[in-house]
Amino acid sequence: MTVACDSATPSDPLPSWNDGAAKTNIINFVQQVTDSTRAEFIPANERIAVFDNDGTLWAEQPMYFQLAFAIDRVRALSAEHPEWSDQDPFRTILSGDSDALGGLTVHDLVEIITLTHSGMTTAEFTTVVAEWLATAQHPRFDRPYTELAYQPMLELLDYLRANGFKTFIVSGGGIDFMRVFVEEVYGIPPEQTVGSMGKLAFEMRDGRPALVKQPGIDFIDDKEGKPVGIARFIGRRPIAAFGNSDGDLAMLQYTASGPGAQLMVYIHHDDAEREWAYDRASHIGRLDAGLDEARERGWTVVSIKNDWNRVFGFEDRGQGG
Amino acid sequence: MTVACDSATPSDPLPSWNDGAAKTNIINFVQQVTDSTRAEFIPANERIAVFDNDGTLWAEQPMYFQLAFAIDRVRALSAEHPEWSDQDPFRTILSGDSDALGGLTVHDLVEIITLTHSGMTTAEFTTVVAEWLATAQHPRFDRPYTELAYQPMLELLDYLRANGFKTFIVSGGGIDFMRVFVEEVYGIPPEQTVGSMGKLAFEMRDGRPALVKQPGIDFIDDKEGKPVGIARFIGRRPIAAFGNSDGDLAMLQYTASGPGAQLMVYIHHDDAEREWAYDRASHIGRLDAGLDEARERGWTVVSIKNDWNRVFGFEDRGQGG
Repeated sequence: MTVACDSATPSDPLPSWNDGAAKTNIINFVQQVTDSTRAEFIPANERIAVFDNDGTLWAEQPMYFQLAFAIDRVRALSAEHPEWSDQDPFRTILSGDSDALGGLTVHDLVEIITLTHSGMTTAEFTTVVAEWLATAQHPRFDRPYTELAYQPMLELLDYLRANGFKTFIVSGGGIDFMRVFVEEVYGIPPEQTVGSMGKLAFEMRDGRPALVKQPGIDFIDDKEGKPVGIARFIGRRPIAAFGNSDGDLAMLQYTASGPGAQLMVYIHHDDAEREWAYDRASHIGRLDAGLDEARERGWTVVSIKNDWNRVFGFEDRGQGG
Repeated sequence: MTVACDSATPSDPLPSWNDGAAKTNIINFVQQVTDSTRAEFIPANERIAVFDNDGTLWAEQPMYFQLAFAIDRVRALSAEHPEWSDQDPFRTILSGDSDALGGLTVHDLVEIITLTHSGMTTAEFTTVVAEWLATAQHPRFDRPYTELAYQPMLELLDYLRANGFKTFIVSGGGIDFMRVFVEEVYGIPPEQTVGSMGKLAFEMRDGRPALVKQPGIDFIDDKEGKPVGIARFIGRRPIAAFGNSDGDLAMLQYTASGPGAQLMVYIHHDDAEREWAYDRASHIGRLDAGLDEARERGWTVVSIKNDWNRVFGFEDRGQGG
C-alpha cells in the first residue's frame, strides 16, 4: 500500500510551499550552509539574508501600499495647502488618476512623504502610520494592508531564523514607514530594516530631544542603491537575497558575487486569480532584465501560481504539492 | 572572624570593576529592566545599548587611533602625490607637528580617509586596515592598538548581552575602519556598528559588482549626528548609552528622554598613571558640558582611577575593591 504524502507534514518548515524546484533549492541551500561538516558551511554570524518588501514580503498592487498611505495623507492635509492643487506631485495625487499614479517612481513616493511630513518628529510620524495601518483597507481584499503579507514568505523568514540566519529588509520603501509594522508582521526588528529615507535633524522641542523630519531626500534604497544600503547598514555581503523586480537586480548580483554558497531568489507574480499577474510590462514591480538574468544564471524563480499552495494567511489552504 | 571579600568572586560578571556607585548603578539597572515582575521591566527586543568607541571602548591618546592609521596611509601614498606637501590637511599630516595634528577634528579625519582612499573598493580598504592593525604598534604601550580595548568595558558588553541587550557602537570614527575589528575585539557585528561615512557607489569592476569609495562625506556621526545615526541605523531609542566626551552628550540626552528606565554613563579619564588624565581642556575627547550635565542630572560617571581595578587586558589585575 502507498501512503499519499502531503507537503504539510508536521516536520515541514514550509507548509505553504508546494514540493518543487524552488522549495528544494531553498531547503538544500539552508542544509548546506548550516552543516559544519560540509565545504559550503557558513558560520551563523555571516548568514545574512536580505528581502525586498513590496512584492516580495507583501503585495504591491494595485499600487504600492505606501502610495495609498501618501494619497490618504495628501488628501487629509490638502485643506491646509490650497497651493497643492496646482503643484506636482500633489496635483497628480489629488487627481486620483490611476494611470498618472502608476507613473510615479519610488523617488516620487519618497519625495511626497518627505514634503508632506517635514517638521514632524519621527515619533509623531510613527503614530500617523500606525493609525493608518489600523484603519485603512486594501481595495480588493477589504482587509488591513498588513494581512497582505505572503504566508509562504513568513514561513521562510521563520525557517531561516531557526537556522541561524539574520533576516533584513532592504526595500525602496520609506524606512520610517516600514519600521512601524515590520517587527509585528515579519518578526524583523527596526534595526534590521533598510529603506529610503528623508533628511533628519536632532532638535530640542519644549526642552526635550526630538528627531525631526526635514524636507529633502537623503538616500534612495532602490536599484544600485540597494547594495550601497547593504554595505552601509549591514557591512557584509548577504548569502541569500529575495526580490521580485528589476529594482532588486543589483542586490541579487551583489549577493551572487560572494565567494561561497549563495541563494538568489525572484518571486514571479503569475497568479491573477489569487494575487496578480505582472512582470515585463508592469509599471509597478517590473521584472524584465532580472527575469532574463535569473534564467541565464540559474537563480531560483518562484511561481506564485505553482510554488505556493497558499498566498495569504487569511486564505484557506489550497491543494498540497 | 571576618573574611575579606574580593569583588572578583566567581559569580561577579564585572570582575575588573571595583565595588562602588558606578558598578552598583549598572547592575541595579540591568536587574530592574530584566525582571518581568518589576515596573521597570523592558522586553529584550527594546534593550538597545549604545557605546561610543574612541575613549569609551578603547583608548584615544595620544591621538585617535584612526588618525595614526591616516598618517601612516598618507605617508605611504605621498610619494605618488607630490602636490600634498602644499595642501591641507595633507601638509599638516605630513608635518608630524603634534599640536597641529591635535587640532584636527572628526570631520577632518573622515575627510582625510575619504580623500586618500577614494576609488578603492570596500574590500580593498578592509585589507589595508587589517594589515595596519596587524602591524602598527601603540607608541606608549608597544602593542597592537586593538589591545588597548578597556577590559572593564569588554566585561560590560558581555554582561549586557548575557542579559538580552543588543550592543551597538555609535562612533564618530569611520564605519568601514571600525567594522574591520569590532566583531573580533568587542563581539559587536558590523551591522551593529554606526559611524561616520564617505560616499559609496555600486559599480561593475572587471564584470563583478563592487562597492567603491567616493570622494565626499556622506554622514558625520558625532554630536547631534549621533541621535540621527541611531534613528537611521537602529530606529529605536536606546535604554543605555555610554560615552566619554561632549561629542556623546546629544546621544546621552536622547537616551535620557525615553519614557522608561534608562542608564546614562560617562567614562571619566582621570588616571594618568595607568591610562591618561584629561577632560575639560583636552583637544581629544573633551568632556566639559557633558560632565556638568552628568553631575546635574545624576548620570553615572565612571572614574577610571577608582572604579576600574584593571584598565587593559594585558595588565596584571590591580587591587580589588
